[in-house]
Amino acid sequence: MPLAPALLNLLHETFPVGALSIAEAERLAYAYDNSRLNALPDAVVFPTEHAQVEALVRACRAHGVPLVARGRGSNTTGATVPVQGGVVASFERMNRILRIDPDNRLAVVEPGVLNGDLQQALLPFGFFWPPDPTSAPWCSIGGNLACNSAGPRTVKYGSPRENTLGLRAVAGNGEGFRCGTYTSKGATGYDLTRLLIGSEGTLALITEATLKLTPKPSAVRTLRATYRDVGSAARAVARIMAQPVTPCALEFIDDVALKLAHDHGGDSVPLAGAMLMIEVDGEPATLDSAVDAVAAAARGDGLEELRVAQSAEETRALWAARKALSPAQRTISPNKINEDVVVPVSHLPALVDGIKQLSAKHDVLIVTFGHAGNGNLHVNLLPRDDAERARAHACLADVFALVISLEGTLSGEHGIGMVKRAFMPLALEASTLALMRNIKTAFDPDGILNPGKLLP
Amino acid sequence: MPLAPALLNLLHETFPVGALSIAEAERLAYAYDNSRLNALPDAVVFPTEHAQVEALVRACRAHGVPLVARGRGSNTTGATVPVQGGVVASFERMNRILRIDPDNRLAVVEPGVLNGDLQQALLPFGFFWPPDPTSAPWCSIGGNLACNSAGPRTVKYGSPRENTLGLRAVAGNGEGFRCGTYTSKGATGYDLTRLLIGSEGTLALITEATLKLTPKPSAVRTLRATYRDVGSAARAVARIMAQPVTPCALEFIDDVALKLAHDHGGDSVPLAGAMLMIEVDGEPATLDSAVDAVAAAARGDGLEELRVAQSAEETRALWAARKALSPAQRTISPNKINEDVVVPVSHLPALVDGIKQLSAKHDVLIVTFGHAGNGNLHVNLLPRDDAERARAHACLADVFALVISLEGTLSGEHGIGMVKRAFMPLALEASTLALMRNIKTAFDPDGILNPGKLLP
Ligand SMILES: Cc1cc2nc3c(=O)[nH]c(=O)nc-3n(C[C@H](O)[C@H](O)[C@H](O)COP(=O)(O)OP(=O)(O)OC[C@H]3O[C@@H](n4cnc5c(N)ncnc54)[C@H](O)[C@@H]3O)c2cc1C
Ligand SMILES: Cc1cc2nc3c(=O)[nH]c(=O)nc-3n(C[C@H](O)[C@H](O)[C@H](O)COP(=O)(O)OP(=O)(O)OC[C@H]3O[C@@H](n4cnc5c(N)ncnc54)[C@H](O)[C@@H]3O)c2cc1C
Repeated sequence: MPLAPALLNLLHETFPVGALSIAEAERLAYAYDNSRLNALPDAVVFPTEHAQVEALVRACRAHGVPLVARGRGSNTTGATVPVQGGVVASFERMNRILRIDPDNRLAVVEPGVLNGDLQQALLPFGFFWPPDPTSAPWCSIGGNLACNSAGPRTVKYGSPRENTLGLRAVAGNGEGFRCGTYTSKGATGYDLTRLLIGSEGTLALITEATLKLTPKPSAVRTLRATYRDVGSAARAVARIMAQPVTPCALEFIDDVALKLAHDHGGDSVPLAGAMLMIEVDGEPATLDSAVDAVAAAARGDGLEELRVAQSAEETRALWAARKALSPAQRTISPNKINEDVVVPVSHLPALVDGIKQLSAKHDVLIVTFGHAGNGNLHVNLLPRDDAERARAHACLADVFALVISLEGTLSGEHGIGMVKRAFMPLALEASTLALMRNIKTAFDPDGILNPGKLLP
Repeated sequence: MPLAPALLNLLHETFPVGALSIAEAERLAYAYDNSRLNALPDAVVFPTEHAQVEALVRACRAHGVPLVARGRGSNTTGATVPVQGGVVASFERMNRILRIDPDNRLAVVEPGVLNGDLQQALLPFGFFWPPDPTSAPWCSIGGNLACNSAGPRTVKYGSPRENTLGLRAVAGNGEGFRCGTYTSKGATGYDLTRLLIGSEGTLALITEATLKLTPKPSAVRTLRATYRDVGSAARAVARIMAQPVTPCALEFIDDVALKLAHDHGGDSVPLAGAMLMIEVDGEPATLDSAVDAVAAAARGDGLEELRVAQSAEETRALWAARKALSPAQRTISPNKINEDVVVPVSHLPALVDGIKQLSAKHDVLIVTFGHAGNGNLHVNLLPRDDAERARAHACLADVFALVISLEGTLSGEHGIGMVKRAFMPLALEASTLALMRNIKTAFDPDGILNPGKLLP
């Protein structure tokens, strides 16, 4: 359905030539994201200024037209697919780093800055921004904030919610606003900053972010531990997390994933019941004792081999298995279903065990790996044909039920988007969902922002 | 105005004898808080169960009667004063530690648990909960969460917003709900947990909290540095915060405060232009190098003396000045006005300087000290008579304007309550305040929870 001429006129007043497109080729390019779902928007705009975003939201609101914010479309849940058509606002050109302020340990950025570009810019100052999704080189800070995206380092340094001080944004009601502080601490009213983080573009469009920086430790050491079975590895994770030295990465890879990576990546990938990849960081003077503490906790019943990399070369070799995983999965199943459930660390053994049983029950190949230090596992169902695909969907419902029964939740870092909406009532009480709907209305009374996402 | 008999009957059905009082003596005891403001409630209730709190909120809502949550009344902003009468719900008897789960680094508590009691209970497990207000022995976790209260350790370990995983609560609409997770990470819907933290009992009554625990470092060392003037000390703070080893306390005390503490506390308190108290924590093997790094940053132009405590005895002596401060101020001015403004660390020199000028301009004694690592200073105006009191209030408005001009905000940890409401439009845009009001309505449509607080 083409946009009303009056709305198009408004958009033309706001966006110069080249910053607004209704050409089908361009609309097609913004129809899908990494979920492989898709739906055609009626127009695509490329804001570069906060004021344009205010005008945009007001225009869409006046015409009751859906508006979907987009970073780089790398999310896995259909969160940027314009299911109800309307306008996609791609922030890719609003990508300036406005201020790096090492004295106050913060940076101010526009939402389209790529995570990887920010990290590069921070390097000379000796700082980093902790959220580190694997997609860092090609995903935007706006997307990271909107999804509360995270990565291996989160176990030690936290997610965007722990690493963002303030935001500038435009609510669905068309009002621009600032929230949060330019300080590392504050108790001045309701915390709108954290409310927007993880809201998947359904409350407001973020136009600027004040990010909390962390000093970059000068040294990192990598350890690789293989175990007899997934249970022993999961118990080692719980032991590691119960002692005072928190590793800066604590990744788990199950036996099925190792076999896959071995077949695909070669002999440098060990075959074992399960494997942990561990990174410990710190200053040179303190690193040895930190590594010793973590290694001691990694040892225990079921450990087969513990290797500490002594060089950059060895570090690369140790990570080979983890790197080989993604391509290996794609060869088996281009339609893999990738979930990122999370349970308390002490329930990891039960989760891993339960998933093995569900894999057998539904006769679907499942590989499990991920951020074990947070209890956040990527459960990848790998159906090879349509029959398996149907079984995989049935299995998925059982996986979520298992996770909830283990005091866990649906998503650790990918968010809800379109694909997990229907499962929200499993994880949240009706009263909690009702409050979330009230909040949606408080920001976006006409429901124009990213309709059909997050809330069931 | 006594409560309507129908409401009283409802309350009697919910609260057993001894858990509901309308006796004047008891009402008087719950009329005031540490702000010294006061207003008489019409009844006081002492819930011990979540279900009682649901019934209570519903009853008050049905009768349009104000309801004020109270921990231990130690807040400094009038946040628990029932300015419009109604019912005070004191959580002091809902004080069980429900679960300590070291494997998952978390604890589940009822809101009435005292901060200090929780820390004691965690000690044997080797963990602590980072928020550490000086009032820890006699303030409640519920109050800490509702105010986002903090202390010296916040510079390294964060405030309640960084250390809380989930909550159970009853919204002003009478609906009980759970939010957040029992895991260290989550991306399942809007972050209601952080929204309630710092909301000062205006959105919901908290009935249970899942707190994130941190391993307790096994060693701490205390340093004391004196400087020629406040500017050199403030610049040392910025240097310390710009290097990778973050101290677990970085407290600033200005010359006026030192003189006061010296007069009151004796010769062990140094007389200097300004002083920093620094604590560094870690494991025994790593502590020396961490102390060296921080000490190196503390050195610089204007440093007069740097002492590192070598024993528990010496540590106590070094802290003597800080300890003598509170009683010293009370002797001068029982009516001190205690603010806790916050600015970016690099603007501390300008803040300290500006406050000296305002003290001279308004002819009011001001002592400044506090959590310099977060840029969070306690600005204490010490009027000795009514004339000075009037001048102090005029001065206060200038202090806030100064803070805002330095990219700071009104409160770092004490919150807004009654006393800073009027200044909120200085710190927040009208559009931000409007969204906060919408959120208030989303939780508490009839405005019964803690009316007259936080929002102007
Ligand atoms: C190979 C690969 C690896 C990945 N690894 C990880 C990982 O390790 N950890 C992880 O957490 N995720 C991972 N992801 C998922 C994805 O990269 C993240 O969710 C990322 O944060 C999305 O960023 P984006 O810029 O692509 O946002 P998009 O996908 O474009 O958008 C994501 C959401 O953010 C909203 N949004 C975007 N910009 C704004 C804005 N300015 N204002 C308001 N809302 C906005 C959108 O509306 C949408 O709801 C991976 C993806 C791929 C393809
Ligand atoms: C000597 C002294 C030193 C102090 N030092 C510090 C300090 O270093 N740092 C600091 O931050 N503060 C400090 N304070 C202030 C105060 O102690 C804190 O704000 C504390 O968190 C208040 O806890 P409380 O239990 O006394 O709460 P109260 O004062 O009873 O209540 C505070 C607020 O919390 C709300 N509330 C309480 N319980 C609940 C609940 N269950 N659900 C919803 N809302 C609730 C109340 O409605 C009110 O708005 C100090 C106070 C004193 C007297």
